[in-house]
Amino acid sequence: MNKRLVIRLLGAILLLEAACMVPSLILALIYGDGDAMAFVKTMGIMVVLGLPMRSLSKPEHRDLRAREGFLIVALAWVILSIFGALPFMFGGMIPNFVDALFESVSGFTTTGATILRNFDFLPRGLMFWRAFTHWIGGMGVLVLTLALLPQLTGRTSHLVRAESPGPSLSKIVPKMGDSAKILYAIYFVLTVIEFAALIIAGMDPYDAAIHAMSTAGTGGFSNYAASAAAFNSPAIEIILTVFMVLFGINFALFFRLLIGDVKGFFHSEELHWYLGIFVSFSLIIGVLITPLYGNFFTAMRYSFFQASSFMSTTGFTTTDFSKWPAAANILLLILMLIGSCAGSTSGGIKVIRIAMLCKEGKREIRHTFQPRKVQVVRFEDKGVDESMLHQIGTFVFVYIMLIMIGGFLISLDGRYDLQANLTSSLTCVSNVGPVLSSMAALDNLGGYSSFSKIVMCLLMLAGRLELFPILAIFHPAIWRKG
Amino acid sequence: MNKRLVIRLLGAILLLEAACMVPSLILALIYGDGDAMAFVKTMGIMVVLGLPMRSLSKPEHRDLRAREGFLIVALAWVILSIFGALPFMFGGMIPNFVDALFESVSGFTTTGATILRNFDFLPRGLMFWRAFTHWIGGMGVLVLTLALLPQLTGRTSHLVRAESPGPSLSKIVPKMGDSAKILYAIYFVLTVIEFAALIIAGMDPYDAAIHAMSTAGTGGFSNYAASAAAFNSPAIEIILTVFMVLFGINFALFFRLLIGDVKGFFHSEELHWYLGIFVSFSLIIGVLITPLYGNFFTAMRYSFFQASSFMSTTGFTTTDFSKWPAAANILLLILMLIGSCAGSTSGGIKVIRIAMLCKEGKREIRHTFQPRKVQVVRFEDKGVDESMLHQIGTFVFVYIMLIMIGGFLISLDGRYDLQANLTSSLTCVSNVGPVLSSMAALDNLGGYSSFSKIVMCLLMLAGRLELFPILAIFHPAIWRKG
Repeated sequence: MNKRLVIRLLGAILLLEAACMVPSLILALIYGDGDAMAFVKTMGIMVVLGLPMRSLSKPEHRDLRAREGFLIVALAWVILSIFGALPFMFGGMIPNFVDALFESVSGFTTTGATILRNFDFLPRGLMFWRAFTHWIGGMGVLVLTLALLPQLTGRTSHLVRAESPGPSLSKIVPKMGDSAKILYAIYFVLTVIEFAALIIAGMDPYDAAIHAMSTAGTGGFSNYAASAAAFNSPAIEIILTVFMVLFGINFALFFRLLIGDVKGFFHSEELHWYLGIFVSFSLIIGVLITPLYGNFFTAMRYSFFQASSFMSTTGFTTTDFSKWPAAANILLLILMLIGSCAGSTSGGIKVIRIAMLCKEGKREIRHTFQPRKVQVVRFEDKGVDESMLHQIGTFVFVYIMLIMIGGFLISLDGRYDLQANLTSSLTCVSNVGPVLSSMAALDNLGGYSSFSKIVMCLLMLAGRLELFPILAIFHPAIWRKG
Repeated sequence: MNKRLVIRLLGAILLLEAACMVPSLILALIYGDGDAMAFVKTMGIMVVLGLPMRSLSKPEHRDLRAREGFLIVALAWVILSIFGALPFMFGGMIPNFVDALFESVSGFTTTGATILRNFDFLPRGLMFWRAFTHWIGGMGVLVLTLALLPQLTGRTSHLVRAESPGPSLSKIVPKMGDSAKILYAIYFVLTVIEFAALIIAGMDPYDAAIHAMSTAGTGGFSNYAASAAAFNSPAIEIILTVFMVLFGINFALFFRLLIGDVKGFFHSEELHWYLGIFVSFSLIIGVLITPLYGNFFTAMRYSFFQASSFMSTTGFTTTDFSKWPAAANILLLILMLIGSCAGSTSGGIKVIRIAMLCKEGKREIRHTFQPRKVQVVRFEDKGVDESMLHQIGTFVFVYIMLIMIGGFLISLDGRYDLQANLTSSLTCVSNVGPVLSSMAALDNLGGYSSFSKIVMCLLMLAGRLELFPILAIFHPAIWRKG
């Protein structure tokens, strides 16, 4: 374990986070809601801690092995979340530390689950910071999955292998720093376009910034308790729908567009599955809820919005979907499980894994009655490596097991029912945000015990980091010397 | 497709089923509840149809390829169920065909879900037949998984490969006919011992026969609406618990005992996992429900009974577990998913698959930070074949997908809520029986629409036949010539 290097990098992350608070501090000063000191205090702590860590003498060797890499990634998210929670506490917006931590983890993991109940008159600098954590988290995920992990693992990790059939950015741009810069640029430009579109549709710039950042990270924090329903504007809903769908697309595909490979973009099999699932589920949900709204087009507006929100794991809402028929709710549940494309800011199992397992399932069915026929599962016009298929199967198993174990632990406080607890666990692991429960008492996750909230924090982190890096922290061998 | 051979075999199955109705007919004549004619009519129809099918001229070749084999297995269960439903209709006990079919499928698949609401004064011959279908179904599953499938597929099918690390009966007894006979004998003797034990504990012989057959098939039909709670006897509950656990054990292990290999029995890793999960889940549930019953031992009696009932996928009940805390219910839900050992009469994913995936998951976690370390998953002291691991992963994926799709289709009638529909789907795929729902209206599955009931029949069959044979029927290639 190269401890010196780990500490130096974590110090850098602390200083970076302090820098990230500057825009929120400026807004706090402009609006004068009394939350400026919360940022000053937090930034002070981060600088005091981060500077000596950063200035630790350089380690003998600069090799970053997979073990250190995963540890840094996991610890980075934990540290970002802990210090990101401090402004909420110092500003008095969320006085309880566990609650503040929950909100911060939910932000950085781009989940968007909240413990806030009363949204009126909250300090605007803090609410901006809350949405900004989504934006940072989303960018972090992109860099992690598309640039950092392939570098760290030499393309041997499960995650990267799972994505390798798709266009791999690391192949196109060999240097990690360069590909990260390209990703930042695409992410930034898309966010700015959404920001502009929302303003044109009638949002004020502050709301537009918050919702654009929330969409970009596929997070889902809104500065209104009613979420996107607060605007009551079909134009805004359509813009949000379009951008939720866009931010669910593999960013390496946007890179293809950027270098003029339009054909490569539209020929992506993952994209076909993604859009196919999205459109078909939306249409079925729309038909199912039409009787509720009396109008086919209104129903479709709600269904496409909610389907894109759940599939991209953003979690914005425009209507009370718990009133929808059970069949529509099950489809939303499935979308929460699936998530969007790998290499996007979304959570969930990811479309590419589901697609491969569907193909593999079909092969297995055929295999039962034609045991001698050798068939290869093909994806993106290439044969899929068999060892990748079993890693994907294991991933899905661990995913489901984590939701179950999480649901059990969450249940121990005895406050809500089976469905509420299991969907709370699912919403955390898939980084979605809202709960699929008809329990009136459960309008947000604030009612859970502190223990349950800490469990949910771990679930959000595990889901965000594709399970294994967070689970690895609990494996004794990662802490062993050598 | 060797159609002639398929038809001849199905004819034989019809005649065999007619013979299986003889005990029920005799009981109907003895008790004189007016249901004797129902059996006479059904048997007449089966003989009239079965004899000409059976006496079809012999096919040129007697080779049974995997394709015909799976088709016969799937069709056998369908035909058994359709004709097994006729006595319920003819006897007026269940006049609606879909309802009668549901009850019959639930019987032969050893699920035990029922649409019966009023259990009093039902004709005793028919109620005996209902439990007898469990017993036939259970025996069919044993022969299918332990004797027929290894023969059919030359040990290449997923199912067999999944079981191959355990003791394989086909290795010990090479001739299929012989191993089937040994299995019948073990199954028969265990049932008789339970029957005797229940009588000693105070049951009358008729009730004892029904509950012994229900336990043997891990089905769960009782002739009382209150299920095992009707007897209000700790002794009976303990006997049922013990036998539910026994019938969840791999029958090849009993064979080991029979040939004196006691060490082989107790060294089985699958058995350790099975008993380990059972005991630990029961203890935790017991602690969770102790406050409800005010007494630790009463709570443990309920928890061990319900845990064994759900894990063995029998489905007997002694108390209203929907009143239990959500945490206890989630554990029951997990037990329904897991099921018991492969090669038993139980349903579910099976302990051996879960155990291997847990080990594989642990390996994957370690792999993230030690990508170069080569590790082999070991089970029963042998390295597990990598291709088996990915087939198991795919199995679990298809299992979960089937529960989701089933839950969606069941929901289309709009009668119950998300949790009720999803757990109904789960209870069918895992062949358990009871629903985990707090909806008072849903005390059994009779309230669903006919369409939902047909979907549930397919789910029960798919679960019973380990998914792929039933799903294969929907694959166009199985019907193709050649």
